[in-house]
Amino acid sequence: MHIDVLTLFPEMISGVFNASILQKAQEKEKFSYQLVNFRDYSKNKHMKVDDYPYGGGAGMVLTPQPVFDAVDAVTKKKQTKPRIILMCPQGEPYNQQKAEELAEEDHLVFICGHYEGYDERIRQQLITDEISIGDYVLTGGELGAMAVIDSVVRLLPDVLGNTESAPEDSFSTGLLEHPHYTRPADFRGMKVPDVLLSGNHAKIDEWRRRESLKRTFERRKDLIDEADLTEEEKKLFDES
Amino acid sequence: MHIDVLTLFPEMISGVFNASILQKAQEKEKFSYQLVNFRDYSKNKHMKVDDYPYGGGAGMVLTPQPVFDAVDAVTKKKQTKPRIILMCPQGEPYNQQKAEELAEEDHLVFICGHYEGYDERIRQQLITDEISIGDYVLTGGELGAMAVIDSVVRLLPDVLGNTESAPEDSFSTGLLEHPHYTRPADFRGMKVPDVLLSGNHAKIDEWRRRESLKRTFERRKDLIDEADLTEEEKKLFDES
Repeated sequence: MHIDVLTLFPEMISGVFNASILQKAQEKEKFSYQLVNFRDYSKNKHMKVDDYPYGGGAGMVLTPQPVFDAVDAVTKKKQTKPRIILMCPQGEPYNQQKAEELAEEDHLVFICGHYEGYDERIRQQLITDEISIGDYVLTGGELGAMAVIDSVVRLLPDVLGNTESAPEDSFSTGLLEHPHYTRPADFRGMKVPDVLLSGNHAKIDEWRRRESLKRTFERRKDLIDEADLTEEEKKLFDES
Repeated sequence: MHIDVLTLFPEMISGVFNASILQKAQEKEKFSYQLVNFRDYSKNKHMKVDDYPYGGGAGMVLTPQPVFDAVDAVTKKKQTKPRIILMCPQGEPYNQQKAEELAEEDHLVFICGHYEGYDERIRQQLITDEISIGDYVLTGGELGAMAVIDSVVRLLPDVLGNTESAPEDSFSTGLLEHPHYTRPADFRGMKVPDVLLSGNHAKIDEWRRRESLKRTFERRKDLIDEADLTEEEKKLFDES
């Protein structure tokens, strides 16, 4: 997978992409990226990329020209039809299903604004997706793009090793994860539940599934309604 | 505001904190931070911070000792009672209201795990808040912590300048933002709506409010139900 990130702040991104899983994915040649400062594409003599909004009001708006030209350049170079993704609070709320969908693509282009709004013509004519990572306001699209990229790249085949992957990831089952415990069995007087030390795997599985249901019920009842519970889980759930 | 971030990957964070608004906030002395690698607090002879889960299963679990000791150290140093925030997919869904709440604090401590789960005793005894930035799985808590910190620091008094702030931020009104347009009035044949060029401010305001309602209705009907609409907005909404 190749990912282009259009940003005015490339220095925000390289530290994240060159650490941990994203770095390993590059070493394994599963993922490559290019940071494109779209200011370099501005035809304005002062290299400006934003201007005052028509109709007045506070804030600045990104002009269409540098963004269109930067996208033209990265798509022509790769000769692909990439997904072109705008990061913005008005976008489709991002979730794990969308991550799985994007992980099927060969080429993604992310457009990150910063403080400013986007000229509406970028939305209307240039992009394929608008994504919001959540209902909060960030100073720019960079953190959102990095979160999406991290969540997508970790799904690519052979990127995660055994120690890093967890088949019981939250959301992959539709429920929140059960509690985890590790050594020591007694830490400052706080003890690990006996069942986890019992060696009885059937009991451990049952405890974990019940705790997962319980936690989801207490914290995120909205997920229970959407999860496909098995008959056995419904029974556990009714008992808890 | 002082923020401590406990992480095994400090190099992921410094690039973001030293750019843009977060950098300006430090220059204005509104915000300071320290990155704490909690591996430095491990009492294990190999400086390990994780171990196999009790009861078996894939993945590793962060042991309580280095995390408790690192939090003890940063709170003792500052002599404050900070909010101690765990970033995890099981946490409270983050939103703008929570950002405003955290912006009132003097000291925040973020705990970021990476791939691993957290030993449950960290949840039970150490933290004040568990936050999830959305229903997707990231390889670590760092991107989530940075998103929360960015959204909080931009709310601190005098951090945002005039050009960066927009009183019509999405979510601050409970609705999505209206479309923005800037120069040129005609870009590749795509034109700016006439009303925005009219100079009639009453008409422009009405158009913007109607577009904001329309966009929210089309994309995020869930927000309409929660927004407090004025009588006038209800009328605009019924017309659209």
